[in-house]
Amino acid sequence: MSSLETAAPPPDSRGIINSAAYESGTRVQNVTLDQIRTVLARPNCFVWLGLFEPDEALLRRVQLEFGLHDLAVEDAFNAHQRPKLEQYQDSLFVVLRTANLAGTPATLEFGETHVFLGQNYVVTVRHGSLRSHVGLRARCECNPRLLSKGPGYVLYALMDFVVDQYFPIVEAIENVLEDIEEEIFAQTMNSETTARIYRLKRDLLSLKRAIAPLVEVCNRLVRFDVDLVPGDTRVYFRDVYDHVLRLNEMIDNQRELLSAALEANLSLISVAQNEHMKRLAAWAAIIAVPTMIAGIYGMNFTNMPELGWRYGYVVTLALMALACGGLFVGFRRSGWL
Amino acid sequence: MSSLETAAPPPDSRGIINSAAYESGTRVQNVTLDQIRTVLARPNCFVWLGLFEPDEALLRRVQLEFGLHDLAVEDAFNAHQRPKLEQYQDSLFVVLRTANLAGTPATLEFGETHVFLGQNYVVTVRHGSLRSHVGLRARCECNPRLLSKGPGYVLYALMDFVVDQYFPIVEAIENVLEDIEEEIFAQTMNSETTARIYRLKRDLLSLKRAIAPLVEVCNRLVRFDVDLVPGDTRVYFRDVYDHVLRLNEMIDNQRELLSAALEANLSLISVAQNEHMKRLAAWAAIIAVPTMIAGIYGMNFTNMPELGWRYGYVVTLALMALACGGLFVGFRRSGWL
Amino acid sequence: MSSLETAAPPPDSRGIINSAAYESGTRVQNVTLDQIRTVLARPNCFVWLGLFEPDEALLRRVQLEFGLHDLAVEDAFNAHQRPKLEQYQDSLFVVLRTANLAGTPATLEFGETHVFLGQNYVVTVRHGSLRSHVGLRARCECNPRLLSKGPGYVLYALMDFVVDQYFPIVEAIENVLEDIEEEIFAQTMNSETTARIYRLKRDLLSLKRAIAPLVEVCNRLVRFDVDLVPGDTRVYFRDVYDHVLRLNEMIDNQRELLSAALEANLSLISVAQNEHMKRLAAWAAIIAVPTMIAGIYGMNFTNMPELGWRYGYVVTLALMALACGGLFVGFRRSGWL
Amino acid sequence: MSSLETAAPPPDSRGIINSAAYESGTRVQNVTLDQIRTVLARPNCFVWLGLFEPDEALLRRVQLEFGLHDLAVEDAFNAHQRPKLEQYQDSLFVVLRTANLAGTPATLEFGETHVFLGQNYVVTVRHGSLRSHVGLRARCECNPRLLSKGPGYVLYALMDFVVDQYFPIVEAIENVLEDIEEEIFAQTMNSETTARIYRLKRDLLSLKRAIAPLVEVCNRLVRFDVDLVPGDTRVYFRDVYDHVLRLNEMIDNQRELLSAALEANLSLISVAQNEHMKRLAAWAAIIAVPTMIAGIYGMNFTNMPELGWRYGYVVTLALMALACGGLFVGFRRSGWL
Amino acid sequence: MSSLETAAPPPDSRGIINSAAYESGTRVQNVTLDQIRTVLARPNCFVWLGLFEPDEALLRRVQLEFGLHDLAVEDAFNAHQRPKLEQYQDSLFVVLRTANLAGTPATLEFGETHVFLGQNYVVTVRHGSLRSHVGLRARCECNPRLLSKGPGYVLYALMDFVVDQYFPIVEAIENVLEDIEEEIFAQTMNSETTARIYRLKRDLLSLKRAIAPLVEVCNRLVRFDVDLVPGDTRVYFRDVYDHVLRLNEMIDNQRELLSAALEANLSLISVAQNEHMKRLAAWAAIIAVPTMIAGIYGMNFTNMPELGWRYGYVVTLALMALACGGLFVGFRRSGWL
Repeated sequence: MSSLETAAPPPDSRGIINSAAYESGTRVQNVTLDQIRTVLARPNCFVWLGLFEPDEALLRRVQLEFGLHDLAVEDAFNAHQRPKLEQYQDSLFVVLRTANLAGTPATLEFGETHVFLGQNYVVTVRHGSLRSHVGLRARCECNPRLLSKGPGYVLYALMDFVVDQYFPIVEAIENVLEDIEEEIFAQTMNSETTARIYRLKRDLLSLKRAIAPLVEVCNRLVRFDVDLVPGDTRVYFRDVYDHVLRLNEMIDNQRELLSAALEANLSLISVAQNEHMKRLAAWAAIIAVPTMIAGIYGMNFTNMPELGWRYGYVVTLALMALACGGLFVGFRRSGWL
Repeated sequence: MSSLETAAPPPDSRGIINSAAYESGTRVQNVTLDQIRTVLARPNCFVWLGLFEPDEALLRRVQLEFGLHDLAVEDAFNAHQRPKLEQYQDSLFVVLRTANLAGTPATLEFGETHVFLGQNYVVTVRHGSLRSHVGLRARCECNPRLLSKGPGYVLYALMDFVVDQYFPIVEAIENVLEDIEEEIFAQTMNSETTARIYRLKRDLLSLKRAIAPLVEVCNRLVRFDVDLVPGDTRVYFRDVYDHVLRLNEMIDNQRELLSAALEANLSLISVAQNEHMKRLAAWAAIIAVPTMIAGIYGMNFTNMPELGWRYGYVVTLALMALACGGLFVGFRRSGWL
Repeated sequence: MSSLETAAPPPDSRGIINSAAYESGTRVQNVTLDQIRTVLARPNCFVWLGLFEPDEALLRRVQLEFGLHDLAVEDAFNAHQRPKLEQYQDSLFVVLRTANLAGTPATLEFGETHVFLGQNYVVTVRHGSLRSHVGLRARCECNPRLLSKGPGYVLYALMDFVVDQYFPIVEAIENVLEDIEEEIFAQTMNSETTARIYRLKRDLLSLKRAIAPLVEVCNRLVRFDVDLVPGDTRVYFRDVYDHVLRLNEMIDNQRELLSAALEANLSLISVAQNEHMKRLAAWAAIIAVPTMIAGIYGMNFTNMPELGWRYGYVVTLALMALACGGLFVGFRRSGWL
Repeated sequence: MSSLETAAPPPDSRGIINSAAYESGTRVQNVTLDQIRTVLARPNCFVWLGLFEPDEALLRRVQLEFGLHDLAVEDAFNAHQRPKLEQYQDSLFVVLRTANLAGTPATLEFGETHVFLGQNYVVTVRHGSLRSHVGLRARCECNPRLLSKGPGYVLYALMDFVVDQYFPIVEAIENVLEDIEEEIFAQTMNSETTARIYRLKRDLLSLKRAIAPLVEVCNRLVRFDVDLVPGDTRVYFRDVYDHVLRLNEMIDNQRELLSAALEANLSLISVAQNEHMKRLAAWAAIIAVPTMIAGIYGMNFTNMPELGWRYGYVVTLALMALACGGLFVGFRRSGWL
Repeated sequence: MSSLETAAPPPDSRGIINSAAYESGTRVQNVTLDQIRTVLARPNCFVWLGLFEPDEALLRRVQLEFGLHDLAVEDAFNAHQRPKLEQYQDSLFVVLRTANLAGTPATLEFGETHVFLGQNYVVTVRHGSLRSHVGLRARCECNPRLLSKGPGYVLYALMDFVVDQYFPIVEAIENVLEDIEEEIFAQTMNSETTARIYRLKRDLLSLKRAIAPLVEVCNRLVRFDVDLVPGDTRVYFRDVYDHVLRLNEMIDNQRELLSAALEANLSLISVAQNEHMKRLAAWAAIIAVPTMIAGIYGMNFTNMPELGWRYGYVVTLALMALACGGLFVGFRRSGWL
């Protein structure tokens, strides 16, 4: 897989990356942990707090300020969750898996983004994900009309951001798949190709595991979990849902194509093996016949009249050539050579 | 795949292809973009606007006139959507994938048709699809009784048109499949056939992806999304639904047949390989035995009484022939030759 | 497949085959097209009209008399429908696929029977189906108690008739399957068997496609579509439902058995191939060793003391025999021979 | 499969096996067909009638006495039904498939038990099942507290009895499976093993077909069909349900293990074949080289100085030995020998 | 599988392991069987009784004290149940399967934990499970706030304890899988690896059977069975549910990877076999050609002019070398060597 990634952003230092309050879609101030409570009390105002691999103390402090549920905070600390949506009394907890192609040859790396969503706050916790959300926040802030829809819109923007990262990966896999196809049908496949196919399968399985649960998450956001996602934001989640379905479909398609390619390959090998066996047999026969004739005239019987004939040798050589030629033509005709 | 296509229609120029207002099923006037608002205000009148790969400016203008939703318009501009039905507050957005066999050897090409459906308008946006809707519109206009049912009927006509395009394709695949079957059972299959099978599989996967989502789309049109599709039009969508089910079934069937054919092929190769190995072994034995005997009488021992015998040579030749003959008959009987 | 069919009935001429009115389960009169309207007006009376591949004019006339829906009539005219049940405002439209084993070797042929069911009429349209419904009608008429239940009962009788035709076919397939099993385990399988397996698979796929949709059709008749099928007829459809489930199960079972048989076959071939390879290798060694020894004593060195020994030749022959014997015994013991 | 069965009970004569009336769980009298009507009229009393492959006359008589439905009686007469539960207006009809291991080598035999269940009667019809219900009836009669729950409890006891018969069968299959595993990994598998695997697969398919429909039957008894199964008997059917689920799971597990074993076997054969081919090639080379050298010195050129050397022969022999030894060591090292 | 287990705890003696009463989450007293009734009568108090493979008498006594249902007690006595949740009138019965890696090489061992849950009691019955619940009870007692939620919380703690035991097992399997992958791609796989793969598959099947039913159990605890599990405990069961889903997913993933690895292996063997066959054929040809030439000049014809030539021998040797060299280069180029 060739690297698709732009230069990796500078690694964030762990802890709070960004923290701001928004009123009617406009950033009104940066917020320290101590100010959160005051800001949350203001009507029509919401706080967006961005964390990167926080230590336990910080996370506990944040939990206290926003009143997050114990189990959700534990999940956000431990990471290694599967993508999911959990509804608590007055908040949502969303786990997303982020993916990245990095290194040469590019390998697939997974990170996680956890989102706590309340009436007037969004807390995001990133783990191992290389792309920070700085660009995303900037893009949201450029569009106060949409941001004024509140935390629900931020959740949409985040999910859209995460899901869109998968498309270049799936396209890179498309290319690898085409390479493999080419190698198979040019019959230049070797054991390295097999290893490559295996790695591709493993990557597709990982991608599938990252994306498939999002179908359910999006579906629930579109249909049921009403309170925190206002009605007019729903339609945006339907858009994410659609992208997730497409990704899912593309991955399934690639898995099926990979299987078909493997099958084609095995079939080609079988055909080739059969061909080789036929050619091996044909050449073995072509060489064995004159050898046998030579053996016969190499016998030491005293009474072998042919040996004394004047043209015995030449005739024998001719005979050998004839036999070989005849066999050659015969095998050619029947397609063994 | 042999080309099934009639001569491709002249490529449309991009932009508005056709735009007309209809009253009680009869075309009453052509409509420019500026007139749309006036026409939409008239009761019992609907506008049918046909676009082909519009540029962004035109699409934005159309969005303004009809009040289409941002996300739907973006989808219609970007294309590369999966077939779907989305319900907005007062409109439907339908994405259809169109298919086409073109070129020699015929290859499968996909396009897209997007439909915006409102109380009194239909807007169609075609992408890459070779067949224009001109013929379809003409056919609809010939039947005012049906067209008077309004935009819902136009949606039906469009879907029927798109779905019907798949039948000749599926039949062309049927023919390819029969060719492959024949090659397999005549055991003339080679690596080209394998590549052909693979391409066929890929085509079937693409077709499946284009058609399968339509089952859900049609199902929803028949059962739930009531407002824009009047009750007596439902029965027509059930007809489309039925066609989609049949296509789906035919494609699944072809995929299973292709798998069965491949299996049969592998089985035939295995049987053949076994046959070849047995024949190879039998002939090797038949040639090896006289060679061995010849070798024995080619030894230079001074004391080899047979060498001096008068008929030693002839007897040995006879022995060789006998051995070969015996082996030949034996192998014949046990089915190795 | 051996033919199971009784002699095919004389091919019907196309058009109306039979048309009669029934009152309280008794046939009261034959009915011409012109009389239908009068008869339908009579209370407690229903018309049963049987058509065989009618031309369009006749079908249109029938449509007019009974007030059938356009789309259903088109389906009945075109045929090539998948089995289905469609409910129109005041009528049901049922499509059934009929099957037949005919010819030597028996091949599977499919036909179609379309049924229009109203409050007081049944119209059946047969396509390509070899067995006429004459016998069925006679059987129904023998049982006025049941026939008095009205058109719903006729639908049941028809479906039962069609479904029961599948049992002998499935049993014939059972026999073919047993033949194939036998050939496989007697290891007398050849490429003809492979072709036979493939044809069997294709037949099973076709049967599955004909029968599987009936599960849904019967289920709906048993549970939901109440108006035209009176409550006490339901239990009869449950019987048909049960038969359909059994057929379905038998076909699935046969498909799995066929797969298992194929697998067993491939496994047997692999085992046999391995055996052959081992035997080939063993015999090659047994012949190669004396050939090599003979070659050595066929060398022309002046100083080869063994050549002058008195018993050199005999000892060498004994040595060869010993070597061959030793190899033979060794290979025997290790199971290679 | 080794026989698990205790000695088969004496074959019942066809007809009525047992017929008794029960009041508050106690057997009060034997009942002849003529007495049934009188007994059924008594409150708090139920009749339990046991039939074994009755002829049609008897079955019709029984139908009359208990007022059973035509279709159910036909099913009970014809047998060869799939396990099912059918609810008639005031009765239940349950079909169970019984299984038995008999003969040496033990083969799987299936029978059927049909149960008609009414408010105050149970009629059981056995077909081909070797174990009579005498023991079961005795066991029920020992526990009047439970039997007093009425016909519903008898149905439970019957189902429990039938389902429990499957456990020893599934365990016998477990043993066969272990034998096969052993043969495979000891690589002593031959074509007999393949046939055995195939038979095992067929048996598992048959068992699956007998047991899988019971999941649905039990589920309905536990949840929906309230009238004839009193609430406090439900919990017993849940127990049967649980056993059926376990059987189902065990069978599925065995099928998957069998597949895995077959796969392992094919993989072992492939590996072995590769080994054999490498050894065949290595030994062929080791023998071919001295043969070639011997051939060279067997040529009859007048001017071959080596032939006249004193130690020519010995050196040549040494050379041959060296070549063979070198090849042998080389092949050893690279793992070909 | 390397052992992951800490030293096994001392084997418990069979019978009652622990029995205590709790008020507001605090242990107030140990309880003998005779005291249970008195304690159960106290409000806000619950009893937690821990049994290990109790004999029937003890279990019957416990049944009497707590009023447990017959069928549940039988299940708890017999063990060998599948994981399930059963609701009785005023109690829940939960069956969990516990797993353990023990021995060298580590093998998978399964035990069972049965839980009876009432308004004011928890009874646990362990079978064969090596880890006692002592540590668990201690941990629960350290947290009176949570324990005060009552028996429902104890059920959660137990399930969490059991489910968490599966993670190290699944990780150990992950390692085995990686070893196998390595062996496959280093092409050092042999028949021992195949046996290992088979055992791994069997283990994965067993794990799947132990874990998959828990999805349903947890789901029901989270959603429906309200009475005994108070609302604020639900969220904890959702946590267990999540872990179960992850385990399930990991196992499925490992199964798919194992399949992919096997496929890769078969593909590698096929490729290797083809390579070997080509090399075998190439070397056979290279040796056969000079042997044939030598045979020709070993013939004893009196009139073979080459034999008398001065450089005949040398030229012939050169010819042989040339032929061999030519063949070698040719095969190299075409990739056969």
